[in-house]
Amino acid sequence: MTRFAFELACTDGRARRGSFRTPHGSVETPAFMPVGTAGAVKGVTPGELRVCGAEIVLGNTYHLYLRPGHELVGELGGLQRFMNWEGPILTDSGGFQVFSMEGLRRIDENGAQFTSHIDGSRHLLTPEKSMEIQAALGSDIAMVLDECPPWPAERDAIEAAVDRSTRWARRSLESYDGPGVVFGIVQGGTHPELRERSARALQEIGFPGYAIGGVSVGEPEEAIPRIVGFTADLLPADRPRYLMGVGRPLDMLEAVARGVDMFDCVMPTRNARNGTLFTSTGRINIKRAEYRADGGPLDASCPCETCTSYSRAYLRHLFVSNEIMASRLNTIHNLTYYLRFMARVRQAIEVGEFERFHRECAEDARAWT
Amino acid sequence: MTRFAFELACTDGRARRGSFRTPHGSVETPAFMPVGTAGAVKGVTPGELRVCGAEIVLGNTYHLYLRPGHELVGELGGLQRFMNWEGPILTDSGGFQVFSMEGLRRIDENGAQFTSHIDGSRHLLTPEKSMEIQAALGSDIAMVLDECPPWPAERDAIEAAVDRSTRWARRSLESYDGPGVVFGIVQGGTHPELRERSARALQEIGFPGYAIGGVSVGEPEEAIPRIVGFTADLLPADRPRYLMGVGRPLDMLEAVARGVDMFDCVMPTRNARNGTLFTSTGRINIKRAEYRADGGPLDASCPCETCTSYSRAYLRHLFVSNEIMASRLNTIHNLTYYLRFMARVRQAIEVGEFERFHRECAEDARAWT
Repeated sequence: MTRFAFELACTDGRARRGSFRTPHGSVETPAFMPVGTAGAVKGVTPGELRVCGAEIVLGNTYHLYLRPGHELVGELGGLQRFMNWEGPILTDSGGFQVFSMEGLRRIDENGAQFTSHIDGSRHLLTPEKSMEIQAALGSDIAMVLDECPPWPAERDAIEAAVDRSTRWARRSLESYDGPGVVFGIVQGGTHPELRERSARALQEIGFPGYAIGGVSVGEPEEAIPRIVGFTADLLPADRPRYLMGVGRPLDMLEAVARGVDMFDCVMPTRNARNGTLFTSTGRINIKRAEYRADGGPLDASCPCETCTSYSRAYLRHLFVSNEIMASRLNTIHNLTYYLRFMARVRQAIEVGEFERFHRECAEDARAWT
Repeated sequence: MTRFAFELACTDGRARRGSFRTPHGSVETPAFMPVGTAGAVKGVTPGELRVCGAEIVLGNTYHLYLRPGHELVGELGGLQRFMNWEGPILTDSGGFQVFSMEGLRRIDENGAQFTSHIDGSRHLLTPEKSMEIQAALGSDIAMVLDECPPWPAERDAIEAAVDRSTRWARRSLESYDGPGVVFGIVQGGTHPELRERSARALQEIGFPGYAIGGVSVGEPEEAIPRIVGFTADLLPADRPRYLMGVGRPLDMLEAVARGVDMFDCVMPTRNARNGTLFTSTGRINIKRAEYRADGGPLDASCPCETCTSYSRAYLRHLFVSNEIMASRLNTIHNLTYYLRFMARVRQAIEVGEFERFHRECAEDARAWT
C-alpha cells in the first residue's frame, strides 16, 4: 500500500484543489483538521466528527506522550483504534507545546528538556524521541521536531533555529520507523531569506509534504499573508502545504489564496467551549442576555444537529448552567461551520470562482474575523 | 385525549407489569426515569436517551424555576420542546431540594421560603406556586408539594408533616391548571399508622397515581423494604406507584417485589460522572490503575455505544484526563445498564419468573449493591 500520495486536481490562481491518500483513507484539500489534543476532540465522538465533515484529525504528541503514554497507545493498536477514529491522523512533534513552556524547558542541539505540566516529572524531547512517539501512536502523518523561536527574536537566533531545525528534520526522517510518512516544517520567522534557506534545505532532504511553521506566533498580523505566500511559493507544487496553527476563517482564505492546502486550529473547538459560536451572520457569544428567550436556531442555514434540534435560548441555558451538553452541542456546531466553510472553499476552486468567493467573504467579514 | 391511563397487564406475586399513557407517549412499567435536573440529562442527548432505552425523563422543578425560569420554558413551548425530548416528562415539586437546604429555608403552612443557591435571591414555594411552575413546564406528571421531614424526626413532627402534606396535596390538585396530571405523595416516615393515615387521606382526594415519599432519607436501610411494602399495599391496584429517589438496582428489585411501578435516581448518571460504572460482573471505578492497559470493553455483554466502541483503557484515559467525553460515554453506559436491567425485570414478571430473577440477582449481588 502506498503510504502517502498527493494529487493536485486543479488550481484557480494560486489556490489549489487536491486530495491525498493515507493508509486510513483520503482527505480532500484544502482541508481543515480538528484538534483532538488528548485522544479526543473534546466533547464529540468520532461518529459525530464524520457527520460534521471531518476527514482527518490532529493529535498532540506532547499530551499523548505524557498521558496515557505512547507505548500504551501503541500496545492497544495505535491512536486510531484507541480513540475509535478510523480516518487519517496527523500528529504534531510535541515541540510547539514544549517551546511554549517558558521556564519549564531547556533546549540544546540534542533536543529539549522539559517538565511535565501534569506531575512535574522531567523529560527530554529529541527528534528521535518525537519520531518514536509518533510512530507508536501510528499516525499517518508525523511532523519533524523543529525549533520555533519565540517572537520577537533576533535574526541570528532565527537563523540558528532554522539550521538546527534542518539538522533535526534530517534526524527525524532518518530515525522514523512508523506506519506513515513524515512532513518537514519550514521555519525562518518573517525573514524571506531565512524562509528560503529553510525551504531549500528541507527539499534537499526531501519530504512528501511541507508545513509552514512559526507563523501566528506574535508577529504583526499584516505580515502573515506575505510570509505565507512567499514560503508557499518556495515549495514544490506536487506536495501538500500545511500552515500550522492558523485557523481564523479569513486567515485560512488568505492562505488558500497563496497555495496552502492544510490547516489545523483549536479555535472552533475552544471557542465552542467558551460559548463563542460562528454563524452565517456573524460570531456570537451564546451567553449574552439577548439570547435568553430566543426560540430560533443558532444558525438557520446550518444543517448540524445543534441548529436543527435546539434553540438559542436552550443553548444559552446550557452554557450559563455549566451543563456538559453546552460544550458538546457548541463544538458540533462550530466544527460543522468550519468544515462546511472549507467545503465551500474547495467548491469555489473547482468551479474557478475562488477569487470571487474570497472577495465576498472578505466584504462580509462579520462571520470570519 | 386522555391525559393519563394506567393499565396493569399482569402480576407475579406482588410484582406488577403494566404501562401508562401520557400526552407524549406510553411508558412500560416497572420503569426507571433518568434525571434531567436542569433541562438536560447531563452529557447525553434525547436521541441517546432513547437508544439507552429511556421512555420518560424526570425534570427538577427547583432547578428549572431558578434557571432558566418556568415562564421562559413555557413561552418556548414547554420543557419537552425546550430540551428536544419528545417523550413523557415527570417533574418533582421542588420541595425536596428546598427542604434539603439546611438554614436556607423556613417552612410554614403557606409554603417554604428559601434562598437561591445561584444568586441568593429569596423565593416562596407554595403548593400553588409548585403547580404553576410544573404547569408552565408542561410536564405530563406533576407531583404535589409535600413536606418531607428530615430523619430522624419526632413522631409528632412526622404526623404534623403528614397532615400538612395532605392539605398541600389538596391545594396542589385544586390549583393545578396544566396539560398533565398530578400524583399524590404518601409521607409518614417509618410509622405504619402515619403512612396509612397519609395514604387514606390522599385517596379520599383522589389521584391518578401515588408516590411513596420520605424513603431513603437516612433511616436504617433494613427498614426500607418494610415501609415500602406496607405503603404499597395501602395504595389502589389500578394506579401506578412511584418510589421517589430510590435507585440502587437491588433496592429497586425489593420495591418491585412489593408492588412498586416507577423509580428515579441520580445514581447512574452521577456515578458515571464520578467514574463508577455498573457492569454485569460488578461495579468498577474506571480510574483504577488496573484498567490502564485494559484493551477490553467495559462490559462485554452490554450493547451500548460505549461498550461496543471503546476500551476500558480509553475510558480510564478520558476520565483521568478530565475529558468531557468521559462523562458522556460513562453516562450512556450506566443508563443503558439501568434501563436494560429494568427491561429484564419487566420480562421476568411477564413470564412469571420474577421471584427467581430477584433471587438470582440477590445472590449475585456484586453488580447490584
